Amino acid sequence: MRAAIFRNGEIVVDRIAEPKPGPGQVLVRTLACGICGSDLHARQHAHRMVEMSKFLPGRTPMDLSRDVVFGHEFCCEVLDYGPNTTRKLKPGTKVCSLPALLTPQGIEGIGYSNDNVGGYAEAMLLSEALLLEVPNGLAPEHAALTEPLAVGVHAVAMANIQGGEVPLVIGCGPVGLAVIAALKIRGLGPIVAADYSPARRQLAEKMGADVVVDPARTLPYATWAEHAQMSEAEKAARPPFRAMLPALKPAIIFECVGIPGLLQQVFEGAPRDARIIVVGVCMEADRSEPMLGIMKELSVQYVLGYTPEEFASSLRLIAEGQVDAAAMVTAEVGIDGVAKAFADLANPEMHTKILVEPWR
Amino acid sequence: MRAAIFRNGEIVVDRIAEPKPGPGQVLVRTLACGICGSDLHARQHAHRMVEMSKFLPGRTPMDLSRDVVFGHEFCCEVLDYGPNTTRKLKPGTKVCSLPALLTPQGIEGIGYSNDNVGGYAEAMLLSEALLLEVPNGLAPEHAALTEPLAVGVHAVAMANIQGGEVPLVIGCGPVGLAVIAALKIRGLGPIVAADYSPARRQLAEKMGADVVVDPARTLPYATWAEHAQMSEAEKAARPPFRAMLPALKPAIIFECVGIPGLLQQVFEGAPRDARIIVVGVCMEADRSEPMLGIMKELSVQYVLGYTPEEFASSLRLIAEGQVDAAAMVTAEVGIDGVAKAFADLANPEMHTKILVEPWR
Repeated sequence: MRAAIFRNGEIVVDRIAEPKPGPGQVLVRTLACGICGSDLHARQHAHRMVEMSKFLPGRTPMDLSRDVVFGHEFCCEVLDYGPNTTRKLKPGTKVCSLPALLTPQGIEGIGYSNDNVGGYAEAMLLSEALLLEVPNGLAPEHAALTEPLAVGVHAVAMANIQGGEVPLVIGCGPVGLAVIAALKIRGLGPIVAADYSPARRQLAEKMGADVVVDPARTLPYATWAEHAQMSEAEKAARPPFRAMLPALKPAIIFECVGIPGLLQQVFEGAPRDARIIVVGVCMEADRSEPMLGIMKELSVQYVLGYTPEEFASSLRLIAEGQVDAAAMVTAEVGIDGVAKAFADLANPEMHTKILVEPWR
Repeated sequence: MRAAIFRNGEIVVDRIAEPKPGPGQVLVRTLACGICGSDLHARQHAHRMVEMSKFLPGRTPMDLSRDVVFGHEFCCEVLDYGPNTTRKLKPGTKVCSLPALLTPQGIEGIGYSNDNVGGYAEAMLLSEALLLEVPNGLAPEHAALTEPLAVGVHAVAMANIQGGEVPLVIGCGPVGLAVIAALKIRGLGPIVAADYSPARRQLAEKMGADVVVDPARTLPYATWAEHAQMSEAEKAARPPFRAMLPALKPAIIFECVGIPGLLQQVFEGAPRDARIIVVGVCMEADRSEPMLGIMKELSVQYVLGYTPEEFASSLRLIAEGQVDAAAMVTAEVGIDGVAKAFADLANPEMHTKILVEPWR
């Protein structure tokens, strides 16, 4: 079968063997697979992912001298089953799944693995136990957005929202947009969102941002503060030793960029007691000023992935039309288009989410 | 009056004018004042404190070309009152106070200020509204430990303890010891505490640590894991997708050292989902690997100071004998001994908390 392969630091097209489903596994045809920002980062910083794996007991790092097929945001169609399967879903059924494969050796990742091919290939293996049937006749290119939406749903769940917070979303790429969608569903607002790109700001509004900021013109934290003023009742309810602080509602700041220096920018701009949720995946070492964290009593919650429940609920949210995730899709390419798509995604005005459709 | 003064980066003894109490203020005689790790850091990194102040709206940074008298862990004796005071506590009454002064311009700090002399001087000003009478005939040298204990009480309060966590305390200087005492009072355990110094480990046990670790011999995280194994019931109660992770109770890690590189060490050693409370005050920029935070979904809560309630309750805990804070005190010096005490505190085997008694 054909695949876009990460080989020697580049994305190349080549033929590889079609995988054979083992016990409990299903062979599926890849219908659509989103290109994730993590894939772009991984192409540049794969050696850092490997290096950091040593601190994670039980993880097998990628061997970068061998092929890897990326792609963990997929919608597929059942082709065939391996042994020990119930075969409940007929061949042709459209399915989504967490990018994880249950093997006799334990649970393994799909998409950042030498052994488990991701969605930039014509076919792949999934675990029958993890299959979710795509409901409501939802198009595969929309169902493929389940994974990125789940990232936002999880980030908001991890923010431990008490009610009354005013969120600020830094960066409106797919991760920031998913966070905005998830915040909107939770009814939290006003949602303030910042991005340098006009196209991204427009998308942010479409996904539910109430206020958008161009950081080149206005400091996002100043705009946030305008929209986070306490009511007179909230002011009166503060303990006396808080009464001398600025009368601002609690801040939840979602860092959805993931490049070095961003966290320090947030530390500098954040109001006292802000909760910072780091959703953007910065793959390089980063530097910040702990004194700012201390003097402002900031908290930083790093988040990753989602629970199976969050993943399933994200698919439902898209299928029921509660989240217009499709608004993010700016192009579809075949396997031959993956390398160029990686380059094109560098321009936020042109592209947000590019889907790989290996059958094209 | 005489004072140990921070001048041109050094601690020197000189005479300065005795302050005059303004409206609502009290002139007090300093009986005992602890030397805080922050004072040691501040001597080295005062310019960093000033630099970071620009990100804190409303703060007046120290002018390092002028004198500063450190000292924010004090017990004093009422001498005289300014105008607009109720004079409820008679001269001679022993008092503690938060290191804060209410002035017509607002609330100001004591001890890192050009205007408000700290406890390394024979006399200082306090605000009548913030005075706490020292109860139970408690000795001033013990009452002076209220402030450092309050730091631990606050750190534990900010850890948002749900019950069932196993704490790990990294660093058993006064801050780590106060955290241990506060954890003990909360009934959380087993408390695992790590320090390179045998004297500090012995103190940690005295303050309530159940297990002490010498990081030169054993990785603290390995010892922590031995003591954090889930019961069979806890294992069975996990959601299915958690069942493949190591069966460890939730980790709360208190970083009580405050030097660059420490947070990265914690990131490397921490188990998945650990909550890290940063209590040590690192005054230099610090570098860590966000990918480790992300892959382990760590959270970092930076903490500072305490509430007035936490401060008052810390004084009660000492007065009622619930915390043997006095065990920390390793020396008392007069004003002439402050500079040498700063140097002596570099040796953790010799010293933990040195009290300045300006009347000596």
